[in-house]
This record gives sequence, C-alpha cells and structure tokens, in this order.
Amino acid sequence: MSVLVVGSIALDTVKTPAGQVTEALGGSAVYFSFATRLFAPVRIVGVVGRDFPESHWSLLRGRGIDLTDLRVAPGKTFRWSGAYEGDMAVARTLDTQLNVFQEFEPQLSPESAASPWVFLANIHPSLQLRVLSQVPRARHVFCDTMNLWIRTQKNELQALFSEVAGVVLNDQEARQLTGEDNLVRAGRQVLALGPRVLIIKKGEHGVLLFQGSEVAALPAFPLEQVVDPTGAGDTFAGGFMGCLAQGGEDISLASLKRAAAHGIVAASFCCEGFSLDRLKDLRHEQFQARLGLYQDMVSWKT
Amino acid sequence: MSVLVVGSIALDTVKTPAGQVTEALGGSAVYFSFATRLFAPVRIVGVVGRDFPESHWSLLRGRGIDLTDLRVAPGKTFRWSGAYEGDMAVARTLDTQLNVFQEFEPQLSPESAASPWVFLANIHPSLQLRVLSQVPRARHVFCDTMNLWIRTQKNELQALFSEVAGVVLNDQEARQLTGEDNLVRAGRQVLALGPRVLIIKKGEHGVLLFQGSEVAALPAFPLEQVVDPTGAGDTFAGGFMGCLAQGGEDISLASLKRAAAHGIVAASFCCEGFSLDRLKDLRHEQFQARLGLYQDMVSWKT
Repeated sequence: MSVLVVGSIALDTVKTPAGQVTEALGGSAVYFSFATRLFAPVRIVGVVGRDFPESHWSLLRGRGIDLTDLRVAPGKTFRWSGAYEGDMAVARTLDTQLNVFQEFEPQLSPESAASPWVFLANIHPSLQLRVLSQVPRARHVFCDTMNLWIRTQKNELQALFSEVAGVVLNDQEARQLTGEDNLVRAGRQVLALGPRVLIIKKGEHGVLLFQGSEVAALPAFPLEQVVDPTGAGDTFAGGFMGCLAQGGEDISLASLKRAAAHGIVAASFCCEGFSLDRLKDLRHEQFQARLGLYQDMVSWKT
Repeated sequence: MSVLVVGSIALDTVKTPAGQVTEALGGSAVYFSFATRLFAPVRIVGVVGRDFPESHWSLLRGRGIDLTDLRVAPGKTFRWSGAYEGDMAVARTLDTQLNVFQEFEPQLSPESAASPWVFLANIHPSLQLRVLSQVPRARHVFCDTMNLWIRTQKNELQALFSEVAGVVLNDQEARQLTGEDNLVRAGRQVLALGPRVLIIKKGEHGVLLFQGSEVAALPAFPLEQVVDPTGAGDTFAGGFMGCLAQGGEDISLASLKRAAAHGIVAASFCCEGFSLDRLKDLRHEQFQARLGLYQDMVSWKT
C-alpha cells in the first residue's frame, strides 16, 4: 500500500566532527521517502524553488519516489544550516531560510488523497490539520512536530493529536509537551490526547513505543561511526511506516515493534553518511543483513 | 556458585522529587548483594562502624547474605548524602563522610578467597588490585570504578583492567576514560585494555555489552515511577553476576545478554523505592514475572 509524506525538501549545509557538506539534499519528506521506498511506494507532497538542482530531481526520480505533488514555486528552495559537536545528540541550528516553504499550502492530487498511509512531517500544525482534511479516507495518519509548535501552537497540536492514528516525537518534545520528566508518564499523557500509537525517539538510545496500556522499548543500532545524524528521525519514521504499509492492516503491538526495528535500522544507515549518501543506493539485501544483525544484538532467551 | 562482592556499606541520606530518606541502608556491596541473592549465594567483604544499626544487621542477615568478612571497625559508618532532580539521571553529591571506609583494607577469609565469581565494586583501584591478588583462583572477576579514579588513578585502573575478566562502567566513565564521544568506539578501546567483557550502563537508556568483536544493546525496563535511582548500577551488576554464577561457566554472548536482562530487571525494582525498599522482600516469582514482561517488551520477529 502506498505511503504519502507531507513535509520539507531542503538544501542542508551541515558541519559535524566528521566533515561538512554544503546545500546537500535534505528535508523531512526526503529522508522519510528514502527509507519508505525500501518497503512500499511513496509519494511526496512538498515544494521546492526554481533553484532546486537537476541532480536532486534525478536522484528523487531515480529512486521511484512519486513527485506528482512536489510543486515548483517561484523563489528559492528551503535552506537549513546546522552543526553537531561531541556525541552529536543535538543539532545547533546556524541558519534557517524558509523561502518557498514559507508559503507552502499543500494541495493534494486525487491520487495522493487516496493514500491509506499518511505521514505529516514537521510543519505548522494548522497546515497538518488542513492536509488531514484532504485525506478523509486515510486509515493510518501519523504526525511529527517540533519544539517551536509545542511552545506556540499547543491548541492546534492537541486538535491534531486527537485526530491522528499515531504520533512520533523525540524525548525532549514529549517532555516539553507534557511537563513530565518521566518518559513513560509523558507517553501516557500524549496518548490521552487521542492517538492510538506513540513513538518517543531517543536518538542513540533507541525508542519507546506506546499503544493503549502497553509499552515497548527498543535500543538504537550501536554505530561505531556517526557521520551526520541529520534526518535520522524522519528516516526512522519512513522505515517504520514503510514496513507497516507493506504489512497491510496489522497494527498490533508485535507489528509496531517489528516496524520500529525497521525504522531503527534505516536510521542507522542515515547516520553513517552526510545527506542521503548511505540511503540513496541502499539495497534490500544490505538492509536485511543489518536487520538480522540488529535482531541478534537485542534478543535473548530466558 | 557463590559470588563475592567487595565494596561499600553506607548510610545514605537521599532526596529525590519523590521524597527523602535519612541514613538508610545503602552502599555498592549492599545493593549488589540484594540482587545477587535472588540467584546465587553471596558474601560481602566490607567494613562498617560501631554505629551500624542493629536493624540493618538483621536485614542483611535475614536475607542470607554471608557477612563473615564484614568487619566492624572503631568509628562511624561511611555516609553519603545526595539529591536528584528532573529526570534523575545524575546524582548531586551533597556530602561524603568516608569514616571507617577511609582505612578499609580488605582481608579475605579462605572461604571468600575461594569464590569463583568476584565483583570489585567502586573502591580505590589499588585496593581493588590488592583484593585481586587474594583471589588467585577466582575465574570471573568483574570490576567497577568512578570518575574520581579515572581522573587521578588512570595507571592503576589500566593495570586492573588488564587483569580482570570484565568491567562495568557508566557511559560518562567510558567517555572520560577513553576520550571518545562515540560509545561503541569507547567500548572497543576499553576492551583493548584487557578485559574480555565490558558493560556500559546508560541509566534509563539501558546497557551496551561488548565481548570480543561483538556488541549487544538492551534497553532499560521502562518505569512509570522512579523513586530513587541510588544503587541501580550496583543492583544491575548484582543481578548480572548472580545470573551468570547461577548458570555455571557459560559466558557466551547469549549468556551475557540473558544475565544483563536479569540485571536490568533487578535495577528496575531498585529504582521504584528508596534504599532497599523494593529489593529487600522481592520474591523470585515477582522477579520472573517482570522478566517475562521485559522480554515481551523488547522482542520482535522479522
């Protein structure tokens, strides 16, 4: 079943202890798609400027990502610049130029509106709600958000969370949203807002997964070489939803854990290179090999 | 097979967001023993002052912990006072009174010296080395340490690590010891010092386990209510070594992962109460029930 993602397409300038890149392909919708495509057809709803490089267009097209709803607007593409230090747990944003993303108003084609699986990546909650109203037949809508919207748009976020099937947050966002230091209690409070599923991403420490009264925990894939963690959260979400969409309608806790494992392994590849370096040519066999390794690492018998 | 622990017996005064206790029973050897006893006979090598309360003596004796080598010295028992805030990840030490612990010079009885399993909890590395020389027949010696010794006694620590079978550190200690931010690389560097096994404890984020070229990762048991994390690391080590000792001589990676899971579950009980509140009366069935729950939480199928 096909997966729709609504989010940013960006030109990222990133510096980490491992090196730096300038105006590399990035953005939440892009990272998400490169992970989802391993498991299910994926289409992007987004906007770029007229300066969006031809090489990036070909990379996206060449990976079978449906770009019907990727609009080109007069002006420049969204740009983000950031740096990581030490354990690279948190990005320091150096510059954000919204450019054409500022006027982004998603209009879904009938094909996009028919997607059963939808991921609303981090954009303004009002926009997320307007997309939601365009996908009345979507059975599984998940969303992300960010600290800025938690601080300034809490009501819209709560309205959004009450209507989606699932929410994906990082640990700081979950704490900020609920005022709870304890992540299990924070998770339960987010679920109380309405979603049936919540994932709290903890970067190099893995994820917590909440469904109803159940909680599950999965560690990250231990990486010896982290080059650039940019996009890891969206790559996780892409692997997670791609795996779920491939599996059909099963959203049992067992299925969610399996999907989260796929997201974790996808994110591990993301971190091993700048931009899409590791994800762009990733083959299914390479993915499956690491998935097997990950399962060996984390499983044990009583 | 019996397990020997050399470490502190303390009177802890602790304040957390959940409340506070004054001069409660604590110390690394105590927490360790209360977890180990669930799986294997355990004996403590340590020292207390003449002020050590009779109620604490009876609690230790009543749980079958062998106290033959627990000396009473003239003077006062070691006291530690600390506070936790927010997510309680790090203790703020308010006061340390070494008292009789300052002159602690472990002398092992023949019975203790014959223990096949030995845990050298956090004491001065020179003391740990002197204990090591008293247990020539011990087949599995594990040790812990702390930031102070990494800063001031690096050579002694390296000498110690070159002679033990296993090392248990927390993430900050592993980074401090190696100068590596990446925990997998830090872990490999610690292994290069000599031990065959290394565990890096990450508090609420679980553990990383290293053996030879292999790495494994286990999340912590997600807790909704953390009352006091004091002693969780030593409780982990106690559950881990108790489980290994119960299993005989098998120290395969599979066996180490299983033992780490036992340590993680033991530590989860520790955090749910002050001092030994949750550990002191913990029954084997309660432990097994949570171990089963933990295994369900973390396992998934491809």
